[in-house]
Amino acid sequence: MARTIGSNGEETAARIRACALELIASQGFEAMSMRGLAAAVGVQSAALYHHFATKQALLADLMMSHMRDLLTAWQTTCADHMAGQAATASDRLDAFARFHIRYHISRPQEVFIAYMELRSLSPVHYNAVSELRRDYENLLKAILQDGVDDGSFQIDDIHVTAMAILAMLTGITTWYRPGGRLSASAVEMQYAAMVRRMAVDDIGESLPVQRQAKQ
Amino acid sequence: MARTIGSNGEETAARIRACALELIASQGFEAMSMRGLAAAVGVQSAALYHHFATKQALLADLMMSHMRDLLTAWQTTCADHMAGQAATASDRLDAFARFHIRYHISRPQEVFIAYMELRSLSPVHYNAVSELRRDYENLLKAILQDGVDDGSFQIDDIHVTAMAILAMLTGITTWYRPGGRLSASAVEMQYAAMVRRMAVDDIGESLPVQRQAKQ
Repeated sequence: MARTIGSNGEETAARIRACALELIASQGFEAMSMRGLAAAVGVQSAALYHHFATKQALLADLMMSHMRDLLTAWQTTCADHMAGQAATASDRLDAFARFHIRYHISRPQEVFIAYMELRSLSPVHYNAVSELRRDYENLLKAILQDGVDDGSFQIDDIHVTAMAILAMLTGITTWYRPGGRLSASAVEMQYAAMVRRMAVDDIGESLPVQRQAKQ
Repeated sequence: MARTIGSNGEETAARIRACALELIASQGFEAMSMRGLAAAVGVQSAALYHHFATKQALLADLMMSHMRDLLTAWQTTCADHMAGQAATASDRLDAFARFHIRYHISRPQEVFIAYMELRSLSPVHYNAVSELRRDYENLLKAILQDGVDDGSFQIDDIHVTAMAILAMLTGITTWYRPGGRLSASAVEMQYAAMVRRMAVDDIGESLPVQRQAKQ
């Protein structure tokens, strides 16, 4: 079958990305050479540079793609989940927690690299990736704020709570393995319940920070 | 002042460890060369090998030391905190959360490397580090189990909850910077409150996993 140059090019770029993810996850970005990557993909080095001008541009592409895909996937999930409903903050928080778990479980290498290789991004790329990360964090913060505003959440500090929830949810990639004791959906439900507990405080205590402020 | 060879040797080993932490955190273990490390420390390569037989032995030493120091620090904190008290599970959970936050905030490089470079440990060293990690996780699990046993905690799955709490607490190293909007003690108190919420469920719901099991 004849292939157009365009689709062939896209296929090669996809193979480069997949091999780069493997190599960076196993040995780190600094230790990966473009020559080694070309060998893993099975192309000449020149073919790599046709797709990615520099090694730095390749890393930035991987990290930007990861964040853009994540943001797009949430928009889709959110639209599906909320279709025709006036969703409460609590429903949206639940949907966000489940989405985040499900998405991150399926992409442990991307998650690992997104955290580990921030240090290797040039300032321009670091800022661009950070902006996308903030866009994602702001989705969660908006849900938390809506819940505070309508009285359904009791939250002391939106930023701290959002950071804590994201770390808790993302941390699943460090221990969860498919085929283990717990199914992905059982784990997803338990994390969603823990997130709900963190936002809904009916345990009748004022938070220590508030107590201290009164002293 | 004359120094004994022993104390000089210990001082060199400490400088090697400190420089190795810097280099591994900034470029990754695979990309760090023993020659580059010797240059950073300001010694001949032979001096490195006097202290660490191989690059692998150096990495294992850094990761084992981190875990052993963490376990020792908790024993000390725990003994101080609990002196003369019959501490409740809730008090111990609070002390653990505060200890973990305080310890990890002060050692972001060790925390980063402890997660990132597990992949570079040989199987023997990986197992040894994993055992120490399990010892630490088991301290938290024992507290959670005690709280479940005495009826003060409502927890669906001890392992999942412990993993979620540890990830949430450790995640602070990815965003907290001294001198920012929040003091370390304010952040410590907020995280301790969130951990308490995760263990104490008075929000009147049975967890989804339990609901599913009944269906």
